Amino acid sequence: MKLIEGGVCAAKGFKANGIHCGIRKNRNKKDLALIVSDTPAAAAAVYTTNLVKGAPLLVTKAHLADGTAQAILCNSGNANTCNADGIEIAETMSRLAADALGLAPEAMVIASTGVIGQPLPIAPIAEGLPALAAGLNANGSDNAAEGIMTTDTVKKQVAVEFTLGGQICRIGGIAKGSGMIHPNMATMLVFITTDVAISSAMLQKALSTDIANTFNMVSVDGDTSTNDMVTVLANGAAGNPLITEENTDFACFMKALNTVTVQLCRMIAGDGEGATRLLECRVSGAADEATAKAVAKSVICSSLLKAAMFGADANWGRVLCAIGYSGAAVDVEQVGVSFRSAAGTIAVCKNGAGIPFSEEDAKRILLEKEIEILITLGNGTAAATAWGCDLTYDYVKINGDYRT
Amino acid sequence: MKLIEGGVCAAKGFKANGIHCGIRKNRNKKDLALIVSDTPAAAAAVYTTNLVKGAPLLVTKAHLADGTAQAILCNSGNANTCNADGIEIAETMSRLAADALGLAPEAMVIASTGVIGQPLPIAPIAEGLPALAAGLNANGSDNAAEGIMTTDTVKKQVAVEFTLGGQICRIGGIAKGSGMIHPNMATMLVFITTDVAISSAMLQKALSTDIANTFNMVSVDGDTSTNDMVTVLANGAAGNPLITEENTDFACFMKALNTVTVQLCRMIAGDGEGATRLLECRVSGAADEATAKAVAKSVICSSLLKAAMFGADANWGRVLCAIGYSGAAVDVEQVGVSFRSAAGTIAVCKNGAGIPFSEEDAKRILLEKEIEILITLGNGTAAATAWGCDLTYDYVKINGDYRT
Repeated sequence: MKLIEGGVCAAKGFKANGIHCGIRKNRNKKDLALIVSDTPAAAAAVYTTNLVKGAPLLVTKAHLADGTAQAILCNSGNANTCNADGIEIAETMSRLAADALGLAPEAMVIASTGVIGQPLPIAPIAEGLPALAAGLNANGSDNAAEGIMTTDTVKKQVAVEFTLGGQICRIGGIAKGSGMIHPNMATMLVFITTDVAISSAMLQKALSTDIANTFNMVSVDGDTSTNDMVTVLANGAAGNPLITEENTDFACFMKALNTVTVQLCRMIAGDGEGATRLLECRVSGAADEATAKAVAKSVICSSLLKAAMFGADANWGRVLCAIGYSGAAVDVEQVGVSFRSAAGTIAVCKNGAGIPFSEEDAKRILLEKEIEILITLGNGTAAATAWGCDLTYDYVKINGDYRT
Repeated sequence: MKLIEGGVCAAKGFKANGIHCGIRKNRNKKDLALIVSDTPAAAAAVYTTNLVKGAPLLVTKAHLADGTAQAILCNSGNANTCNADGIEIAETMSRLAADALGLAPEAMVIASTGVIGQPLPIAPIAEGLPALAAGLNANGSDNAAEGIMTTDTVKKQVAVEFTLGGQICRIGGIAKGSGMIHPNMATMLVFITTDVAISSAMLQKALSTDIANTFNMVSVDGDTSTNDMVTVLANGAAGNPLITEENTDFACFMKALNTVTVQLCRMIAGDGEGATRLLECRVSGAADEATAKAVAKSVICSSLLKAAMFGADANWGRVLCAIGYSGAAVDVEQVGVSFRSAAGTIAVCKNGAGIPFSEEDAKRILLEKEIEILITLGNGTAAATAWGCDLTYDYVKINGDYRT
């Protein structure tokens, strides 16, 4: 398996584009993205568990009931959520895009991200769609990735190439963060495309299995969004034998999918609102996976630890504190903690108590951009990883006045 | 019932003091507090649910097994938690204080607050105790309240006077916040004294019942501390008929206790680390109390909403979002939201969707120091209140470099 360029256009038979249509005030910010498969594709999706669901999710869910789709339209700058006319607007978006592409509205995945509770004007979308569709091209992933950004500072895309049944296959994805990120059985906006031939049932199985260890283990701020969604379109253009069961090809596909999703998780966490550091919490030695996950996620969600990481302060007591309130059954006196980065590794806690360490070395290690928090529970063999980011002045700044 | 001065010394037969003994580097910050009843008192306590528990809690729990205590010793600047010698140090604190007061060590409540995982030196405490004990006086609540502060910016104390069985009684308390505040069946450090005559069993019942609606409904940052504790000492000096059952005197005592604890909750939340505003979330119209509490606490804990409140931005979509992921069964289409402060009230959401409102008026209302977030669920008659604060640059600053 190797990393390749191309994002959502890396897989054969996909085109994409992104433009500024006028939903966002800043004309330099793209706000509308389109991803299209040349042929109908198997489709799978997972949605936010928030009871307040964006109208686009409800429309998309209905469209994917038959397990197929062919195109994705997503706007940024407005979530189309908690609006009295939300469903009507999302359905109009579907119809307009389908018309522009010569498809049925049911072939459309619709997504929106941005401010909640402000009516989404349809005019800019209607006016922008012809140019958006006309500009679709096989190098359009960059533009699409930009079109779905809100407070993201970098576009997020990744793709891999691998072989199934002698055929070269590809999976690629784009994602957007970067606040209101605390998925729970669902996630932020992620669009994945692949030319693998796979049934929609197996595609859904692969996605639902994967997110438990990837997007659901990411937290930027503990807020589970109303509009989170991950979708995968698989158009079969690679020509591999159709995957319809849990065979070795399926395992291989799962592995490739996971490579893409883990990279997107790291990108989303590392570009969390205001973030200066990516935090990766790796828990091992747990009695079971649920324990490992609960501990990893609790640590990554601690505001106090996140602020300490911003200050490159090895305040490991906050790691112990977060382990203690995680809800998991942990033998505190067996817990060990180390910090690791490109600058080295330093152990700070053993058997639940502090051990002497060089504050100078710790500071040097924690000043890196990517920090691993290594936790051993000394109680078994299960492990889990969670991703997050530090809590910074800029998080407060971005969110203190988001709507203007 | 009326508010009176005196804090933990308002009740008859209590003395207190606080000094700088040398645990904190800044000589202008008091770091050791002592509260003593003239006579043995019924004692009740609740402790943190964090699996990582500070050594002082374990020692205190053992001492209170018989339902009595006579004095409280608390240091700030060091939590004495996750230290290999923690229990030994907490027991030595007990013994030294008991010696200075002529009491048995088992009569002592011991508490510590501050950094986790750094050994607590006993020398400053041993050296400071004689002066601390010698200075005990009936006007010492101010000094004691200062002695337990960490990042608190104001001391927190309150007292009330009321009548039971013809006798004038008093309850007073002091508290410290202001980070790692997210109690769960326990709370930050709160010491309450009363001259009411009440059995220790009924005192525990009163406390355990009260905290479910008070300290457990406060959140500053979502981090449940390792050292949280609320204790009440009741020495009976008021001479009221001993309360041993749930009679009208007990109800009256509960009401007085609640008056004290609600005030302390508001003080703790309003002085949360870096806070510029107190947030009070009042949920009504819930199907049951559990739903009302889950919604109120979810809203008060939302980092996104907290940052918006810092910016005085009426971003009510974040209220809806937090309601949606609260885990409570809510009919989103019945939800209403208003903001209220000394500057007025403004409705922003009705039936789960936005309604037109003046951004100018909203800004004026949200610029006040105390903000109420009013939520109606339209689904019953149960209600709940939770307290929190905004998320500010200063929270990040305080916690980015807490240990130095």
